[in-house]
Amino acid sequence: MPATTSVPRIRSWWGWGYVDAHPDDAECAALGALLPGTLARPLPVPRVADLPIGRPAATPPPALAHLVTTDPQARAAHAMGKAYRDVIRALRGRPGRIPDLVAHPTGDQDVADLLDWAGEHDVAVIPFGGGSSVVGGVEYRGDAHRAVLSLDLTSMNRVLEIDTTGRSALIQAGALGPVLEAQLRPHGLTLRHFPQSFEFSTLGGWLATRAGGHYATGRTHIDDFVQSLRVITPAGAGTSWRLPASGAGPSPDRLLLGSEGALGVITEAWLRLQERPGHRASVSVAFADFRRALDAVRAIAQSDLAPANCRLLDPGEALLAGASPDGSSVLVLGFESATAPVGDRLATALDLARAYGGHAESPAADRDAPADPAVSAWRSAFLRMPYLRDGLARMGAVVETFETAATWAMIPALIDAVRTEVAAAVLKATGHPATVNCRLTHVYPDGAAPYFTVAVAGRPGDEVAIWDDIKAAANDVLHRHHATITHHHAVGRDHRPAYDRQRPEPFALALRAAKHALDPHHILNPGVLID
Amino acid sequence: MPATTSVPRIRSWWGWGYVDAHPDDAECAALGALLPGTLARPLPVPRVADLPIGRPAATPPPALAHLVTTDPQARAAHAMGKAYRDVIRALRGRPGRIPDLVAHPTGDQDVADLLDWAGEHDVAVIPFGGGSSVVGGVEYRGDAHRAVLSLDLTSMNRVLEIDTTGRSALIQAGALGPVLEAQLRPHGLTLRHFPQSFEFSTLGGWLATRAGGHYATGRTHIDDFVQSLRVITPAGAGTSWRLPASGAGPSPDRLLLGSEGALGVITEAWLRLQERPGHRASVSVAFADFRRALDAVRAIAQSDLAPANCRLLDPGEALLAGASPDGSSVLVLGFESATAPVGDRLATALDLARAYGGHAESPAADRDAPADPAVSAWRSAFLRMPYLRDGLARMGAVVETFETAATWAMIPALIDAVRTEVAAAVLKATGHPATVNCRLTHVYPDGAAPYFTVAVAGRPGDEVAIWDDIKAAANDVLHRHHATITHHHAVGRDHRPAYDRQRPEPFALALRAAKHALDPHHILNPGVLID
Repeated sequence: MPATTSVPRIRSWWGWGYVDAHPDDAECAALGALLPGTLARPLPVPRVADLPIGRPAATPPPALAHLVTTDPQARAAHAMGKAYRDVIRALRGRPGRIPDLVAHPTGDQDVADLLDWAGEHDVAVIPFGGGSSVVGGVEYRGDAHRAVLSLDLTSMNRVLEIDTTGRSALIQAGALGPVLEAQLRPHGLTLRHFPQSFEFSTLGGWLATRAGGHYATGRTHIDDFVQSLRVITPAGAGTSWRLPASGAGPSPDRLLLGSEGALGVITEAWLRLQERPGHRASVSVAFADFRRALDAVRAIAQSDLAPANCRLLDPGEALLAGASPDGSSVLVLGFESATAPVGDRLATALDLARAYGGHAESPAADRDAPADPAVSAWRSAFLRMPYLRDGLARMGAVVETFETAATWAMIPALIDAVRTEVAAAVLKATGHPATVNCRLTHVYPDGAAPYFTVAVAGRPGDEVAIWDDIKAAANDVLHRHHATITHHHAVGRDHRPAYDRQRPEPFALALRAAKHALDPHHILNPGVLID
Repeated sequence: MPATTSVPRIRSWWGWGYVDAHPDDAECAALGALLPGTLARPLPVPRVADLPIGRPAATPPPALAHLVTTDPQARAAHAMGKAYRDVIRALRGRPGRIPDLVAHPTGDQDVADLLDWAGEHDVAVIPFGGGSSVVGGVEYRGDAHRAVLSLDLTSMNRVLEIDTTGRSALIQAGALGPVLEAQLRPHGLTLRHFPQSFEFSTLGGWLATRAGGHYATGRTHIDDFVQSLRVITPAGAGTSWRLPASGAGPSPDRLLLGSEGALGVITEAWLRLQERPGHRASVSVAFADFRRALDAVRAIAQSDLAPANCRLLDPGEALLAGASPDGSSVLVLGFESATAPVGDRLATALDLARAYGGHAESPAADRDAPADPAVSAWRSAFLRMPYLRDGLARMGAVVETFETAATWAMIPALIDAVRTEVAAAVLKATGHPATVNCRLTHVYPDGAAPYFTVAVAGRPGDEVAIWDDIKAAANDVLHRHHATITHHHAVGRDHRPAYDRQRPEPFALALRAAKHALDPHHILNPGVLID
């Protein structure tokens, strides 16, 4: 037998995740066959050697040189995030502006020194974690700065301290999801924050973008797990106190959560941890009527049952995920606890679902029981989805996923309007009909977070323009329904116009003033949030 | 039989709550007898006629005159909050600066007009709700402004709109607790926010100070019930969108929550409501050992049982509250639900408590069952306490209550240090020994919020100086243990020096810049939070 060797997996510079997990040409073609009008053959995988990478427009001083690389591969991999818009630009050989420099600081002093140098030399600094932004959050647009430095935090990836009494940990911002969980596991603890990007995004990215995570109810955002933050700004550094709660003035942490690198660089944080749950139960519930399924989900969200998972897939999503072949909507419902068995909570939730016409598979209780097949199918599809999106992109398809949140009274009309209006925009932009699929990813007593997906054949070379048209239609319908431009994907550059319209004017004034105070040379992630 | 007539109860201008609920001279004397060295007779109830109330230093224009009063009684009642420090200053005839004017706006335009006029004429504006501040949050100190206007919001007290689908309501900021609950009750809904000041504090006050409420775990602060806020600032007005959750930039609401009137005037808010719980169960658990009781509470807080009430009284608190005569610590534990019976959760929590040496009375389950006597005793004492404090003040006692929050690893040493060091400061300042009592009011997986009470005979006329010495000692020990200067009482003016030391410097820069942008003439609640 051959000896087993551990080969590090290679990350794609242009597409999602690991190169070895990308769909091959045959799978791309099979995906393309699902969408009439796509290309006959997949676009070739782009090569760094073909990119227009010029000489860096700035050179760091000798004292910082060891932190900085000008390697073309590294610069290409830090040029953009991983939105469809980014992937298709790479495939079409028109990526965003390639940063001049990529820095890998190893500690707070490195970050401060790099910011000082950048401020003195008019160098824009783009904080960069896993690079999984799907909203244009980590690229430079325009030419207002002399040079662009991508500040990659992933060398700062250690769990520095664990407080087992208070179940919390001090974690460096550059730790990717699996990297931090591996360090917590020996202590029997977990952050339990599992966004779809978990493998390819960092704690710092989650904090800066208010990422949505594992829990479908209750503490859905990373915000609620933050005990304290450390930030390095061009105007100085600071750390908030480790507190379980406080009423001392406005929360200092909440101004940094969602600041998307525009106010400072979050370098470490104390996070609240969980015990691993020993009790689990899950079930899928089929509904013939999506409207009644919405009512069932609302009833569950307004109970105090607090399911960890409560994701409603409409018929199109359920079909795509392999969770239902028959046109039903499917509610994926899961409970977990480290304290006590959860069978009663699941049973009560099922009673609520049945009252609205839900039909349940037999629930799968206890951690060792086989999971409900629809639940398993959904989980696998969830993690594979970004790879498939890139496969579709290689077939010249245009793919858009967007998400929002609104109050319950708005939800049915919002979902209907998105389906109708975005489909109309797709038809107008491409000539092809398309179905807009919807799922609810997180639910609240007062509202829900719908997530929409649409895929359609583009016109070769016009994919970005088509995507922009579809995005404009989506943003418009969200705005008219007072639905947030993002529940957990962040604002970045793609959502900026819509964010500007949504943000209350007094907060815009305050944010602009705070930005100017903390980043007086305006070098931090220019174009994000506020000018 | 005599006809029943409804006589409006009269609020005290100088002391807590209703005049008819104040301890009479005999009860004051009985209270004083508990503290060696207090006065032989109670200080007389102060009279407005004896106050040095001068001519107002500013006159509003005719267009605003109907909103403004210069009545001495009204001006006196708006001079201070209801801290011990305020009460003793009134009793000693040395109140804080009496405002020149008291305004009662009836809508947003009134507020905006008053702010415009005040900004043009260098008039400080102190937003005022129920006036229950215990931290000097609603008085003017210094003489940097030409005049002082107290902006009383209580004429804006209506529930404007109810969304029963999303269980939320649009409520004007000036509604006192009972006023808003009375308007919600016909709809079967409740905000369920019951701070000790419930009868005498407003929604706007709760929001501006991040008030702590009914729930001992989970959503402890009003912050978590906010769906959107409307604010009027000198630089303009704005309303955040009604959203169940959002990831679009830093939360605009979280900058206003805790802003204590320094950034703008909150005039209305959409709040998330609850169904009235139909299932309840409560029990009191006695512990011989306070340290083990702390461990029990931590175990319960780190479970997912989510008790609505989980208040631990140390032996002194338990004795005072009539909850235990025998030197035990008492844990008051309550569960409630609108969804399902709570007996199992109570039983599981009791198992946890017993594992740390807790002895339970028989639990009282179901809403109609008689409440546990210790639970009832505690509730009555809780609401009566501020009145008794004023009775002690009339006997020349010095009374201080202060509260904080810290991580679990800090809690035992923090409580010990507070007891020792504050008792030493009391002895030094007064010559009298005193006991510092402690209870935990709110608990979290990662920490707890202890609340401390101390009462001692003062020296006639020196009460404020003694209180200041005790307060300085308390602030110092909190700071050395990295315990927040306030968990839910707010910063005001009394906590300002400690707050300045606790706040991260980048946030101070951002807050100062935001203040300058929103309040360019620096008229809003000067001296609070930031200069």
